[in-house]
Amino acid sequence: MSDGPPERDTSAPRTSSEFARIDVIRRLLTEGSPLAAQVLLGIGDDAAALAPVDEPLVWTVDCAVDGVHFRHDLMSFEDAGYRATMAAASDLAAMGARPLGLLASLILPRGLSDADLEALVRGQRAACDTIGAPLIGGNLARGRELSITTTALGATPRPLRRDGARPGDELALAGPVGLAAAGLRLAQQGGPVHAEALAAFRRPLARIEAGLSAREGAHAGIDISDGLASDLGHLIRASGIRAELDAAALLTDSLREAATLVGADPLDLALHGGEDYALLVAGPSVGALPGFTRIGRCMAGTPGTPEILLASADGRATAVTGRGFDHFT
Amino acid sequence: MSDGPPERDTSAPRTSSEFARIDVIRRLLTEGSPLAAQVLLGIGDDAAALAPVDEPLVWTVDCAVDGVHFRHDLMSFEDAGYRATMAAASDLAAMGARPLGLLASLILPRGLSDADLEALVRGQRAACDTIGAPLIGGNLARGRELSITTTALGATPRPLRRDGARPGDELALAGPVGLAAAGLRLAQQGGPVHAEALAAFRRPLARIEAGLSAREGAHAGIDISDGLASDLGHLIRASGIRAELDAAALLTDSLREAATLVGADPLDLALHGGEDYALLVAGPSVGALPGFTRIGRCMAGTPGTPEILLASADGRATAVTGRGFDHFT
Repeated sequence: MSDGPPERDTSAPRTSSEFARIDVIRRLLTEGSPLAAQVLLGIGDDAAALAPVDEPLVWTVDCAVDGVHFRHDLMSFEDAGYRATMAAASDLAAMGARPLGLLASLILPRGLSDADLEALVRGQRAACDTIGAPLIGGNLARGRELSITTTALGATPRPLRRDGARPGDELALAGPVGLAAAGLRLAQQGGPVHAEALAAFRRPLARIEAGLSAREGAHAGIDISDGLASDLGHLIRASGIRAELDAAALLTDSLREAATLVGADPLDLALHGGEDYALLVAGPSVGALPGFTRIGRCMAGTPGTPEILLASADGRATAVTGRGFDHFT
Repeated sequence: MSDGPPERDTSAPRTSSEFARIDVIRRLLTEGSPLAAQVLLGIGDDAAALAPVDEPLVWTVDCAVDGVHFRHDLMSFEDAGYRATMAAASDLAAMGARPLGLLASLILPRGLSDADLEALVRGQRAACDTIGAPLIGGNLARGRELSITTTALGATPRPLRRDGARPGDELALAGPVGLAAAGLRLAQQGGPVHAEALAAFRRPLARIEAGLSAREGAHAGIDISDGLASDLGHLIRASGIRAELDAAALLTDSLREAATLVGADPLDLALHGGEDYALLVAGPSVGALPGFTRIGRCMAGTPGTPEILLASADGRATAVTGRGFDHFT
């Protein structure tokens, strides 16, 4: 609503005009790298433009709100930009897609300085460089609350859906589960350091390569954003099956160490800790795929039986109840 | 950040869980219309999927923040959803692209009821039906401030850029300018009603058809979101030219009436009022295109001369200074 410019607050940190900020952002996002071959038009017009794509397109949007999805007292603005970008790219990984590009829409509160914004954008750039796809446009808006909304576009010959898992399929995971939740608690405690857990929390990795390697053999896939139990629940309900997880396969030495430091049960972290952005796939022999670990199997859905069973080394099986994170209840 | 569910506020208006809300949104967005041919996968997986596109892709993102870009005391939530969707689609029109689909990422404050959310989504659906492209996915996030971020994807054989205008080109406009700004002031005053101005403010139209008809003959295009003077300024600077506008061509009877009701100069509204989402194009004979009105011409850039001149009926020419809206200064 163009109802006049907001009044200027001379005590605020240094903030440039929208157009000056866009110039800086463009430089931070493009310097040192040639325009990717698929990009016809990057930042600076009404829209970005990409060359035609002869495969199905996969397209997602994800949002990170300061104080809800990240807290900039627990991570740098650079981490926040990195993490928001990876969270969106992780949806492409879950569809078995190669990323083509990303757009970012930022809501910037008055108190966010140019330096903070530049750190955030450097984090976005670092994440883009890691996944090998450029950030080619976006939008800046004024608001009271910092948020980073990222939309990512990818391509794949065959999108890997949630609903294709079948009884007898193996379940396999690329990337850790539980470590990011341990890293969050470590950051909140401000005490002992566990580098791997803190990195899992602040610098998660979208499992693009794993998604590409899985798409031939996998029947279904999903990324673990809300927690393994919750997201596996989505996959098995969509597929009309149930699942048994192997407890021992979920526990790594790193997770045990980090869990000890935060006084948590490592299995609880693995099942219910969110935002690792690990990639879960189901398929006949997905446990043998490079980068994946077999963590369980799919079984026929039987009314009245638990959706997810957890098998312990001693042969006992217990029901896992979903405990995903729902921002709305 | 999955640091536990927020505490429940029992005095708050009725708000369902995230998953229940997504079910309602899916129904509102899909009921009564078959899945569009280009959509392989809509709401409900990690990402949406679209069939391969054999033309260049055009891709944009736009954000509307409550209290900054709209005020829900001045328009309904349905209008807010409609308007946010049209604002994003307008960028596709400016590139001469046909829309393929949209995704929406909403930040929802605790106080937003299910009924308000449903109204917002009905507005998004109405806008999508008007432009003939479906909303096929998105994201819900909790935050303190309502915002609607919309990303739109389109296709065109030749993206219409900002930087192609040449001396001698005509300038032509599809859609009104100034009426939305008059409509905003009328809504703020709460007094006399001018239906066309209020509709221009609350229910703007992305000029998709005009963009499609312009792309063959036009050298450059841009949509008018910040005001004609400001957005024409972007086009002529990108193209390295200057422009002369014909004052009489900017003034319609509707604009004069609405300007009188709000006590404003109609020419000032036409030049500097934003968010009509009219489409401005430059090209050899774009004034003759269906739906367009010739409003001026492009001239060679000459150092030291004004970028934009306004020619009056009496033969005088005055310099127009940009007065676009910049949320950041």
